[in-house]
Amino acid sequence: MFLSKLFIPILKNNPAEAKIKSHQLMLRAGMIRQSSAGIYSWLPLGFKIMKKIENIVREEQNKIGAQELLMPTIQSSEIWKESGRYDDYGEEMLRIKDRQNREMLYGPTNEELITEIFRSSVKSYKSMPQLLYHIQWKFRDELRPRFGIMRCREFYMKDAYSFDLNDDDAKFSYNKFFLSYLNTFKRLDLSAIPMAADTGPIGGNLSHEFVILADTGESKIYADKRIFDVNFKDSILEKKSLTKLRDNFEKYYAVTDEKFNKVEFEKNVPEQYRLITKGIEVGHIFYFGDKYSKPMKASVDHQGKKLFAKMGSYGVGVSRLVGAIIEAKYDDTKEVMKWPISVAPYECAILDSANKMDGHSVSQKALQIIDKLNTLDLIVDDTEDNISAKIKKFNLIGVPYQIILGSKTPEDSVEFREVGGKSEIIKISDIYKIQKIISDNKK
Amino acid sequence: MFLSKLFIPILKNNPAEAKIKSHQLMLRAGMIRQSSAGIYSWLPLGFKIMKKIENIVREEQNKIGAQELLMPTIQSSEIWKESGRYDDYGEEMLRIKDRQNREMLYGPTNEELITEIFRSSVKSYKSMPQLLYHIQWKFRDELRPRFGIMRCREFYMKDAYSFDLNDDDAKFSYNKFFLSYLNTFKRLDLSAIPMAADTGPIGGNLSHEFVILADTGESKIYADKRIFDVNFKDSILEKKSLTKLRDNFEKYYAVTDEKFNKVEFEKNVPEQYRLITKGIEVGHIFYFGDKYSKPMKASVDHQGKKLFAKMGSYGVGVSRLVGAIIEAKYDDTKEVMKWPISVAPYECAILDSANKMDGHSVSQKALQIIDKLNTLDLIVDDTEDNISAKIKKFNLIGVPYQIILGSKTPEDSVEFREVGGKSEIIKISDIYKIQKIISDNKK
Repeated sequence: MFLSKLFIPILKNNPAEAKIKSHQLMLRAGMIRQSSAGIYSWLPLGFKIMKKIENIVREEQNKIGAQELLMPTIQSSEIWKESGRYDDYGEEMLRIKDRQNREMLYGPTNEELITEIFRSSVKSYKSMPQLLYHIQWKFRDELRPRFGIMRCREFYMKDAYSFDLNDDDAKFSYNKFFLSYLNTFKRLDLSAIPMAADTGPIGGNLSHEFVILADTGESKIYADKRIFDVNFKDSILEKKSLTKLRDNFEKYYAVTDEKFNKVEFEKNVPEQYRLITKGIEVGHIFYFGDKYSKPMKASVDHQGKKLFAKMGSYGVGVSRLVGAIIEAKYDDTKEVMKWPISVAPYECAILDSANKMDGHSVSQKALQIIDKLNTLDLIVDDTEDNISAKIKKFNLIGVPYQIILGSKTPEDSVEFREVGGKSEIIKISDIYKIQKIISDNKK
Repeated sequence: MFLSKLFIPILKNNPAEAKIKSHQLMLRAGMIRQSSAGIYSWLPLGFKIMKKIENIVREEQNKIGAQELLMPTIQSSEIWKESGRYDDYGEEMLRIKDRQNREMLYGPTNEELITEIFRSSVKSYKSMPQLLYHIQWKFRDELRPRFGIMRCREFYMKDAYSFDLNDDDAKFSYNKFFLSYLNTFKRLDLSAIPMAADTGPIGGNLSHEFVILADTGESKIYADKRIFDVNFKDSILEKKSLTKLRDNFEKYYAVTDEKFNKVEFEKNVPEQYRLITKGIEVGHIFYFGDKYSKPMKASVDHQGKKLFAKMGSYGVGVSRLVGAIIEAKYDDTKEVMKWPISVAPYECAILDSANKMDGHSVSQKALQIIDKLNTLDLIVDDTEDNISAKIKKFNLIGVPYQIILGSKTPEDSVEFREVGGKSEIIKISDIYKIQKIISDNKK
């Protein structure tokens, strides 16, 4: 927890190659490092945040009864030939020949492989439904990777797949993921709007994108502002409740530009509720019935008949969410970032002005506070930087709270603040208040 | 926790292609599924075990002050040309051309990439030492992948790297990992012997393999049995203590066949202590000084001089450990597996004979026990199988404890046993005893 011991290589200036906020911040704060075009290493600070996001995504998948497994990154081309997508997928698929000259590929998505696993494992309708997911690295060989980890080639994603007996059950599964995504993004302190979407290369006829608002977003969005007020906290994992949930959202117009229709927008959305802005896609769900199960012959026995599984797929960009949260939360004019406490790399930073003795020490006062706040996840800046450099650095790193031990702070007190906010003076004897503020915020 | 809802596709018979215990068991118990030669999907049961192993490995790395980051799977060939290993590595390296025709590869190991990260981040001797690790998928294009996940192509590995100012400090780092590996394997309930080893393609002049005993092991080993009694529980992260630790181990002869010397073995090991058997490598540590830092110019400033970092690397095969534990623990004549409680997929199985009403229900008695044991991680076999089929199945799955609700068990009691062990009758009113036995075992 002592910064001087941590591998957090901070850059002094904005790197010239970074054009958007998240890319700039992640490089400057030592969260990532590019290893080749569109491929990044995650340094400890960025890694810690990504892992926290991953765990929230995982918990919300488990809550709806989805089971975690793990498919490999390298796949055989054979199953992609069965589904018919091997040729269609184009140059974004990283194609590989192994030493035996077999055609392999780095999985850009996993509909084929999960269908193969399903068909070789599940034979009876009694084992339905199945909701399966994994969180794994994927590769899409973007022609022009850019914007750091927002449009990169190797990325970390949660993808889930549902298998049901009929359309009605399959829509129930779809709606479970719909709810789980709303809950996931809420825990990340993001307002994500579900929007009717095109299905693209995944296929099918029902699809929603989950989009968060950000000026730097790649998609233009058109929405009815009232969609932000739809309540989902009382929804339960029950068919009727989830159908109602989706109806409540679908009442309001919300689309990206590919589905935009000016006449409809103006007809359906009263002027005062019209929102035209930009957004970032952080999740995408699809229902595509037997698009894969039929060509790949993934069926179960039901009363003497073979039924092709009705499938959906459900993706969340885990690594991309790190960038998306920055785009939503980083004030790049003030150079202040604040991570939501649920994914913050540390809960509170201790910035001490009185540590000039040598490079690796802090004051007695700091040690005393560390000791008293030992239930918090603290980071202590024990470097030789002066206090204003330390504050600037931690405004970038985005730890949500700061305890500042300035030279002018009374000896029996500390300055405490939310990053970027106003300080208050707290007596060391009242330091438990800090613990309480932070733990209240975590609820 | 109800088996009928879980994705655990059990096979009735040993699959013909599986030649060794771990491969057989993992396929039969629905832990893995091959997706192509030497490439496997991890189904929920196998995945859960692997994740528990991963977390133990992670905790023991953190305890010695190593910091976690994550390097990508796909690397550029450029850094491998700098180190000189691009041509040397041979056909086991999976070489890839991307759509721009750039030479890429799937990382088989990460000395080059971590050296690149170090040199672009660390400039001053004050930031030394650095212990960095990641847990990531790797690929080695084995000519003849076999033995399931024991000799596969895509595998999950923890690899760590140390950077120090001089040889003496570097050996201290080396010894920290030495201790951390002993602790890691102990928590996995494995007796791993550190053995002097060749350094192979990694390079350097100091290396130890950590080998566990198993009849099916790929290496022949020669050791002094007294090495099993070396005590390491009092070692601390301090130079002298760790030097002594290594001395205590190195007093005893222990090598694999590549380093074996008959004359030395017989001279140094009294006959009654000679052990000649087979083993499985589960970890490997190397010290190689400036082998990579020098050609790649990874240096820090120290009193006006540039010092090349002295480096070591440290690997644990996380996915391989799942198989290694099976090789060490599975009795394939009795068909009984018992997972160490630290990595067991569930703590206790409830096998109920009285659930024939329909496919998804269990008896009132089972429900009552589930309720009383709610702090345990339970799995309940609610399938239509009869009780002997359930016992056979759970002997394979290897959940360490079983509660059997047989038709002859008194109504107020249950049968309880360690998997493969003798049953005792426990009154439902005393059921807390089961909780206590299991939690005592976890300590």
